[in-house]
Amino acid sequence: MSNTYENAAGLYPLLYETIIRRALEEDLGRAGDITTDNVVPAATRARALIVARKSGRIAGLEVSLSAFHMLDADLDIRVEQGDGNDADAGRVLAVVEGAARPILSAERTALNMLGRLCGIATVTADAVAKVNSETTRVICTRKTTPGLRVLEKYAVRMGGGTNHRFGLDDGVLLKDNHIVAAGGIGPALARIRERLGHMVKVEVEVDTLDQLDELLSIGADAVLLDNMDADMLQLAVKQVDGRLVTEASGGITPDNIEEIAATGVDLISLGWLTHSAKSLDVALDLELL
Amino acid sequence: MSNTYENAAGLYPLLYETIIRRALEEDLGRAGDITTDNVVPAATRARALIVARKSGRIAGLEVSLSAFHMLDADLDIRVEQGDGNDADAGRVLAVVEGAARPILSAERTALNMLGRLCGIATVTADAVAKVNSETTRVICTRKTTPGLRVLEKYAVRMGGGTNHRFGLDDGVLLKDNHIVAAGGIGPALARIRERLGHMVKVEVEVDTLDQLDELLSIGADAVLLDNMDADMLQLAVKQVDGRLVTEASGGITPDNIEEIAATGVDLISLGWLTHSAKSLDVALDLELL
Amino acid sequence: MSNTYENAAGLYPLLYETIIRRALEEDLGRAGDITTDNVVPAATRARALIVARKSGRIAGLEVSLSAFHMLDADLDIRVEQGDGNDADAGRVLAVVEGAARPILSAERTALNMLGRLCGIATVTADAVAKVNSETTRVICTRKTTPGLRVLEKYAVRMGGGTNHRFGLDDGVLLKDNHIVAAGGIGPALARIRERLGHMVKVEVEVDTLDQLDELLSIGADAVLLDNMDADMLQLAVKQVDGRLVTEASGGITPDNIEEIAATGVDLISLGWLTHSAKSLDVALDLELL
Amino acid sequence: MSNTYENAAGLYPLLYETIIRRALEEDLGRAGDITTDNVVPAATRARALIVARKSGRIAGLEVSLSAFHMLDADLDIRVEQGDGNDADAGRVLAVVEGAARPILSAERTALNMLGRLCGIATVTADAVAKVNSETTRVICTRKTTPGLRVLEKYAVRMGGGTNHRFGLDDGVLLKDNHIVAAGGIGPALARIRERLGHMVKVEVEVDTLDQLDELLSIGADAVLLDNMDADMLQLAVKQVDGRLVTEASGGITPDNIEEIAATGVDLISLGWLTHSAKSLDVALDLELL
Amino acid sequence: MSNTYENAAGLYPLLYETIIRRALEEDLGRAGDITTDNVVPAATRARALIVARKSGRIAGLEVSLSAFHMLDADLDIRVEQGDGNDADAGRVLAVVEGAARPILSAERTALNMLGRLCGIATVTADAVAKVNSETTRVICTRKTTPGLRVLEKYAVRMGGGTNHRFGLDDGVLLKDNHIVAAGGIGPALARIRERLGHMVKVEVEVDTLDQLDELLSIGADAVLLDNMDADMLQLAVKQVDGRLVTEASGGITPDNIEEIAATGVDLISLGWLTHSAKSLDVALDLELL
Amino acid sequence: MSNTYENAAGLYPLLYETIIRRALEEDLGRAGDITTDNVVPAATRARALIVARKSGRIAGLEVSLSAFHMLDADLDIRVEQGDGNDADAGRVLAVVEGAARPILSAERTALNMLGRLCGIATVTADAVAKVNSETTRVICTRKTTPGLRVLEKYAVRMGGGTNHRFGLDDGVLLKDNHIVAAGGIGPALARIRERLGHMVKVEVEVDTLDQLDELLSIGADAVLLDNMDADMLQLAVKQVDGRLVTEASGGITPDNIEEIAATGVDLISLGWLTHSAKSLDVALDLELL
Repeated sequence: MSNTYENAAGLYPLLYETIIRRALEEDLGRAGDITTDNVVPAATRARALIVARKSGRIAGLEVSLSAFHMLDADLDIRVEQGDGNDADAGRVLAVVEGAARPILSAERTALNMLGRLCGIATVTADAVAKVNSETTRVICTRKTTPGLRVLEKYAVRMGGGTNHRFGLDDGVLLKDNHIVAAGGIGPALARIRERLGHMVKVEVEVDTLDQLDELLSIGADAVLLDNMDADMLQLAVKQVDGRLVTEASGGITPDNIEEIAATGVDLISLGWLTHSAKSLDVALDLELL
Repeated sequence: MSNTYENAAGLYPLLYETIIRRALEEDLGRAGDITTDNVVPAATRARALIVARKSGRIAGLEVSLSAFHMLDADLDIRVEQGDGNDADAGRVLAVVEGAARPILSAERTALNMLGRLCGIATVTADAVAKVNSETTRVICTRKTTPGLRVLEKYAVRMGGGTNHRFGLDDGVLLKDNHIVAAGGIGPALARIRERLGHMVKVEVEVDTLDQLDELLSIGADAVLLDNMDADMLQLAVKQVDGRLVTEASGGITPDNIEEIAATGVDLISLGWLTHSAKSLDVALDLELL
Repeated sequence: MSNTYENAAGLYPLLYETIIRRALEEDLGRAGDITTDNVVPAATRARALIVARKSGRIAGLEVSLSAFHMLDADLDIRVEQGDGNDADAGRVLAVVEGAARPILSAERTALNMLGRLCGIATVTADAVAKVNSETTRVICTRKTTPGLRVLEKYAVRMGGGTNHRFGLDDGVLLKDNHIVAAGGIGPALARIRERLGHMVKVEVEVDTLDQLDELLSIGADAVLLDNMDADMLQLAVKQVDGRLVTEASGGITPDNIEEIAATGVDLISLGWLTHSAKSLDVALDLELL
Repeated sequence: MSNTYENAAGLYPLLYETIIRRALEEDLGRAGDITTDNVVPAATRARALIVARKSGRIAGLEVSLSAFHMLDADLDIRVEQGDGNDADAGRVLAVVEGAARPILSAERTALNMLGRLCGIATVTADAVAKVNSETTRVICTRKTTPGLRVLEKYAVRMGGGTNHRFGLDDGVLLKDNHIVAAGGIGPALARIRERLGHMVKVEVEVDTLDQLDELLSIGADAVLLDNMDADMLQLAVKQVDGRLVTEASGGITPDNIEEIAATGVDLISLGWLTHSAKSLDVALDLELL
Repeated sequence: MSNTYENAAGLYPLLYETIIRRALEEDLGRAGDITTDNVVPAATRARALIVARKSGRIAGLEVSLSAFHMLDADLDIRVEQGDGNDADAGRVLAVVEGAARPILSAERTALNMLGRLCGIATVTADAVAKVNSETTRVICTRKTTPGLRVLEKYAVRMGGGTNHRFGLDDGVLLKDNHIVAAGGIGPALARIRERLGHMVKVEVEVDTLDQLDELLSIGADAVLLDNMDADMLQLAVKQVDGRLVTEASGGITPDNIEEIAATGVDLISLGWLTHSAKSLDVALDLELL
Repeated sequence: MSNTYENAAGLYPLLYETIIRRALEEDLGRAGDITTDNVVPAATRARALIVARKSGRIAGLEVSLSAFHMLDADLDIRVEQGDGNDADAGRVLAVVEGAARPILSAERTALNMLGRLCGIATVTADAVAKVNSETTRVICTRKTTPGLRVLEKYAVRMGGGTNHRFGLDDGVLLKDNHIVAAGGIGPALARIRERLGHMVKVEVEVDTLDQLDELLSIGADAVLLDNMDADMLQLAVKQVDGRLVTEASGGITPDNIEEIAATGVDLISLGWLTHSAKSLDVALDLELL
């Protein structure tokens, strides 16, 4: 948990505050919160509990709470159960206290973000629990919500998962079309080695064991074993024999992940963690003071 | 369908192009698509089919395809099956033809957006089909993905649903805390009427039939019947007797929506349409030319 | 006045701080305030009084004063006479105290904004006083200064006026061209009802009493009685008999507003409030300390 | 007129397109033009005439028309009477033809901008006509609408006026407070000369003929004769005798400008040109095709 | 030195904070500082000394240090040797103390900026020392790094140099092509005088003594003597005889600047100050606490 | 050269157009190019040759030329000698033809960018030529100009160099402070392996051969041999014996790079390539048509 906290602290607000600001602007529109502004007296104070209605893994709490501070820097905010922890249904995650208006106006923005990030962390944590292995990791993909990648990748980490590439620029993943266009795995890898720096890792996608053989004869950092069933994955892992990092990818869901994990691959990637996670049910319980 | 097409045309690129641009920037990072740039020759041309892998309702096709044009204005793009239509699994939705590099570099951004919007349209269309009513509408909420509200609300429309408020500024929704802070429904509504213009509608949330009685004696545009079961909803609808628009809200899912629809409420709102829809499985099949 | 203050407080800085920042950037340019920076010693302190040179209604004081804080967060700022209040000529509205340089550098930006918003509030208050009615309201239009709508609509409220639509997206106003394109009031309203949500109000513009008859037979939320003289307006109000909210619009000025008000319309709209209000004469009196 | 046209051409869209874009975004909000999108068929075409309802000087026509092109690049736009020309009431300034929807959706944004800039150009042209001098110029100030300075200064030029400083950074204007803080005109000017480059002009504000004497003994580029009446201005001009550019400033309006011009000052500055000009009445007449 | 400090204070953060923010975003990318975040405990504290490794003139220290505060507002920052001062090799310029992570993460951004600005100030100071004159000034040009002009011009001032134009809009510089296009110096200057305001200075470039003669007969504020050798410059200065400010420009380097200065020109401009200055070697020495 | 061209093509305008736009805005300021706008007739046409005044390696030509197209999309632009090629002094790199005004107004922005990027490419090409090795590469660092990293890294590639990390987020570089804070190389690397994904490479800085021994016993992807002289580097390379990629770093200049290359290190990194390269002298020769 202290490790987790350190990760969280590493997410400088500079990396996400524009996302939160835009979300607030999107909800406040031009005229602001016309319900609250017109019926809640400016002097009314309140205490709000941010609560998990369902059990799950917490992620993005400080990120989401920053929405309150953007409307009112004087709000008093206290984290009760921080990122990377599990929360039972009913658990209070944070307490926000101060003027009632900004609390009501930022509520939906904060909860939309928190529910989404906790949702991702929770399915990730479930997948990690099912894999239950020291050597096989659960990893995410680039199938993230447009505009939210930094936060969704962070949520995967809070769920105990590991991140794959953050974008097209921080690692090479040679897929079938790249290989065909380059005239084969060999020429493709040769061009990569000639042109790219020493800090760039190279992974190659293969669909068959023959392609895998070819790749092993040339060498790379990792291999993406695309859409293989458990039997074929097992053969592939054996064939690789530790010479490459192995990644199983394609069609993996919570239903078949245990079977995949049993093949001994190093990495199991699921787009599902980010593109199909349901939001965790989180709520704000308000007490007027 | 022609109606739908007209709606789609109404979504001026000005309303969404910044979202697509940021999504591309997020994926290209600083160095761009280092895999494609280094192994695919600049002169290689390709034809890409945007395909629905699973059946569903199409939404956001032009929006998503704009990612290709942002990288290369010379790409030739042809829509085969546009927004608001249903597509069977395997249906080609659009064809993109031209330089291979920008097609490969924009692929993930376009598919991430398309999958998400089609996912929302598809669950909405399913809900509308289950409700199967001339008089009861399926509506969305403000529980949308931060930064994507305009597009997710649009996807709901493409699914045959109707939009609730777009934000805190374009309609009044008095919830319990507002009412308590204002000293009751009466004072709250009085303040709203005194201060807000004639173009603003007012909806009030009630939890009990007693509150509903009170509201009916005062008057408003609509009532949100919060977390009531089907029996209570039926009583409420009868009690209202057409004097207010009635909205059932809270805990409604595809599993119980038919039962809710049978109560005769005017509107059924589901946060679930936007916060828990899985992405539709869409893909890009590339043929190098 | 306490009511007014609450409205003011509802204008979160998030809604306007970008406007103020751009105005400062526009005035400071690349090199900043080269006069002040080069002749006023950095240690010089000053007290500035923000003063109304002419009498008027105050609006946008906190908004305008934020320009000083953007240059120097350490300035001490005290509001003496806040938004929504009337000020006599010579009245001190606020006191700014601290380093002389930022006070001098932000002066023009703050006064330009304050003068404009007070100007709008003042003409609005004058119009409201002339109407002098419990039942007829003075409302603004979308004829606002590009980029300043949120603030100019706010100034109208501070003047005692009420806001019409904030934009094209938060209410329907069917004008003659819309009606012709749709094939009549009936088809136009049918399409609106079919497609738009329950939180959107619908107003229809009519030029004649026959059109008004047609509209009354179909129904809407409000009617804009376009460019009618007082006699015709009176007939129209009688004809409507409370079934629609009535808005008189077109060619209304301070000179004829009393006559219009006497017709008993619910709303009188004036583009003039925002597009032709003169700035209120406000100034900054500086004392070097 | 050809000269004027050249000035207009010099206003690269890069200098103003962000202003127009924000104005459109402000009017379209999140959901866009819900009236037009829902009742005007996508295929409907129209011809719109941009017309001056009142006579005046044209300014900002191309700037304003760019709003139409931002929504639909395929619209055909033809300028009939360009910037810097006078238009009689009823004069068609431009014709916009193409899809009806974007024309209707951009109408208000374009007219708001056009009316404001023509309004400024018109009052400027009136002032210039009243001055009616080869040697005395009408100039503007920094009392412009926040965010629109570049366009309002341009409108002044189209009205035949000349621009004073564009901001705090492109010229020195020593006012009383600067002089006091620096310990006198002499020390202030010495510091300016020591620190600023050779491309910066220096103007000094004086309130009395004694101060003017002092300034003449030290030297500068120009003198601002602050709030002097016509008699005193005449004495000042005589005293200066061509050694400095003379600017009359403070309290000058269309009512007294002729009297001021008769004093022989080189420049007459009016904040009034930009902070109190009424919008020119411009309209869009639409014919559905 | 106190004078210099005042200049520095005049550089409001509003003028540069966006530049620093973008530089941090550029270095942190999407995932942030993955090295520091993962190996340095969040609780680790440190003291960092910002040190000049080589001797030079300090410029941009506060500007650069703002990078630390953007990541962590709680860092304690103390300037030891501020802008406009000389520092010997080894001199501590500032001390930053607090959490170790943000210090490590902002280090490179701060040093990149500081090294560049000190580099410019240092070469400027060297040039000024070589010129060693009361009457001849060293000035910069518009040959600055794209996006950094405000800071590089500031660095020139800290080096004891003076600024030429900040951009194309704050002064007129007529070059050969302008003159040819206008049909000669006379027509060009006539157009400028007719159209531009009294706060704009006008400089004209001449290549020959004949052109200089022509210019002297017409008059302007300054003359740019383009690419003339020392002998010709001396003749030109004599010919001008104080009637214009004289600027020597073109091909001037530290090697020949003394010779140029001896000609008695008023200004010597060097693009070299900004486009070819090496960064000063500055470093951050960290002590973990 | 065709390879090089392909790299250039990979730099999508999306990655740099904001940089160019800001540079133009910085030069045009509020009022635009007042010299050109006022003396060059709008109808004047011109042909401009972009010329290398000194010999060097070309980089950023298309990037820089985009400045012209941002002011006038109708300009005809033809590249004569593209990125990655060498140009002799006097070589025409591109021809721009069309309206004279935008050519003159964008000239400085384009040349400032081009000169800087060619300068970096040229010093890189010189370093590569001196190293003259199949196995030892010249690489850049993160010591780039704030805001220009993407372009400066690109220029290094055009010079034949290779890129190191693009930022703090796309590779791990453990420096002394990280190691101390983590409690040694072992614990630091353990934490990195546990937390970071398989696409992240890890390089460790060592100052001594003892540290190198320790690192070799633990393992990593690369080692940065910090500030070692040639003799020590040779020992280090021998000690590593191909088990890690070796990078020599610190104090390397064109003067000693050959000696360093002779040690057999895999990589030689020079901050000097980006922080101390002089701009290449490039110019625009204009012919009025």
